[in-house]
Amino acid sequence: MASVEVTLGIDIGGTNTAFGFVDRVGTILADSSIPTRGDRPPQELVARLYEATTPVWHGLSDRCTLLGVGVGAPNANYYRGTVESPPNLSWPGVTNLAALIEGLYHLPVAVTNDANAAALGEMLYGAAKGMKDFIEITLGTGVGSGIVAGGDLIYGADGFAGEIGHTIVDPVGRQCGCGRRGCLETYTSAPGVCRTVLELLAERIDASELRAIPPGQLTAKLIAEAANRGDVIAKAAYEKTGDILGFKLADSVAHTSPEAIILFGGVANAGALIFEPTRRSLEHHLLNIFQNKVKVIPSSLKEAGAAVLGASALIWRELQKKK
Amino acid sequence: MASVEVTLGIDIGGTNTAFGFVDRVGTILADSSIPTRGDRPPQELVARLYEATTPVWHGLSDRCTLLGVGVGAPNANYYRGTVESPPNLSWPGVTNLAALIEGLYHLPVAVTNDANAAALGEMLYGAAKGMKDFIEITLGTGVGSGIVAGGDLIYGADGFAGEIGHTIVDPVGRQCGCGRRGCLETYTSAPGVCRTVLELLAERIDASELRAIPPGQLTAKLIAEAANRGDVIAKAAYEKTGDILGFKLADSVAHTSPEAIILFGGVANAGALIFEPTRRSLEHHLLNIFQNKVKVIPSSLKEAGAAVLGASALIWRELQKKK
Repeated sequence: MASVEVTLGIDIGGTNTAFGFVDRVGTILADSSIPTRGDRPPQELVARLYEATTPVWHGLSDRCTLLGVGVGAPNANYYRGTVESPPNLSWPGVTNLAALIEGLYHLPVAVTNDANAAALGEMLYGAAKGMKDFIEITLGTGVGSGIVAGGDLIYGADGFAGEIGHTIVDPVGRQCGCGRRGCLETYTSAPGVCRTVLELLAERIDASELRAIPPGQLTAKLIAEAANRGDVIAKAAYEKTGDILGFKLADSVAHTSPEAIILFGGVANAGALIFEPTRRSLEHHLLNIFQNKVKVIPSSLKEAGAAVLGASALIWRELQKKK
Repeated sequence: MASVEVTLGIDIGGTNTAFGFVDRVGTILADSSIPTRGDRPPQELVARLYEATTPVWHGLSDRCTLLGVGVGAPNANYYRGTVESPPNLSWPGVTNLAALIEGLYHLPVAVTNDANAAALGEMLYGAAKGMKDFIEITLGTGVGSGIVAGGDLIYGADGFAGEIGHTIVDPVGRQCGCGRRGCLETYTSAPGVCRTVLELLAERIDASELRAIPPGQLTAKLIAEAANRGDVIAKAAYEKTGDILGFKLADSVAHTSPEAIILFGGVANAGALIFEPTRRSLEHHLLNIFQNKVKVIPSSLKEAGAAVLGASALIWRELQKKK
């Protein structure tokens, strides 16, 4: 029986680090995860990862060949293989993550940030299959993006391209974790939806079940559930989120003219609540030559495995380029 | 003696259509221009062009070989070879310009819009030589842009990518020719600088030599001259133009992370008056990971020949791709 070629996809998150062995068509043959423990040095994480992947790999090694390792990590730099001052991890300034992993696995390694990995996963296995020009927007704790143009992910001069979450909605707007004001992320991330609810509760006098929830316990999911029960404040919050998202995505379309914009992550899970106002606002704000051309669609990657699939897609593409 | 390979670069403008025969290193061996006469059908322009280029070509044909024709035109579509409802030309909806030109010259033809052509000219012959990631911004009657990522011009799904001039500064801002409000073009084109002067003259009480000029006769050049003589309103107008340009270019950097942004055209000719505030504002608005990385530099293409060089660069690249 011929051996199945697989890659190892690793997603380093603030809390957990997930991994999986993935074949060429995007089937996760085996997967697991370990705690990231971001307070400890990266060398330790990589050593624990190697320890954790080894027994999982032994369950596959008689019928599979491992070709390479792809890694999605916050602030990862594709060109340098480094992770630079990642948020939520107390790692030193610059960590050469690719070199650490290569040192143990002795295989080709590629790293990029999580949103870029998601875009590649979408292109190889998901809603962007066959597309050459699209934008993946991840709407989670933050807002990330991966921009694909002419069939290639845009990395830019320094490997950090695709930070649409940090384009500016309002230069005197909400404080952002990046130190500036009014970034798209402050409005359309999951915490952004919560901030919009608080703003609406201050501004309006409508009754709302959200008035009973302490602000620190609000979540985008609770708000979506309230909206689906008809809560006017919750509905208005998603409406406003979509308005702002569509408005800024019109600028993104003017840059790269994508066939589709794919929304992924917690806020996108609200379905029509977020997709309808986003589509409406995007069309309203688009330059005439782009109108009625750009699809706004949900990701078709299952959230649980998406990051691992994306990391795997990254290294599959690198292996293909080398051929 | 070996024959010199050349291409024909054509730039179709609202008033004049310029053309030149250009060798591989960007030397214009011979050039000329004819009136565009945008009120007449495109077939007529192409016929007159053929008539005008023929004698110029005869002066070169004993020592040159013509390989192809590149065309820069407003609203030109690279994929389809068409020009669609061009501003300032009363052509019907969609004109298959590439087919018309091929029909007479019997050579490979490529078309794109003027800003994309300028970006290619810059990459082959100008300030972006050797760069793989940069953005060309043309600040003239309008604001155009060409975005190069990973060494390739971004055309997008439909061939219309790179409309940074129509990203939104202020959704309730100045009326734009595109039918919307607050486009970057309404602030940072040459007419945009004039509008800013009028705004400042209304707002402030400073003396200004510009108060003596009828608004309809104001030009970006007159304003630059006044600024260089120390006129406070004129200086403030360029300052504000750079502020707004830098602010929106920070969004562009977040998309494609360019090594440089290259400014071309009338407003860029104001030199330090526009470059200094643009650089300052860009740095101020950049996300931390992009700070102190992105050069803002002037085009090194001479304005007179730039459009013809750009059109020629377009077809040189196409010919190279085919090899």
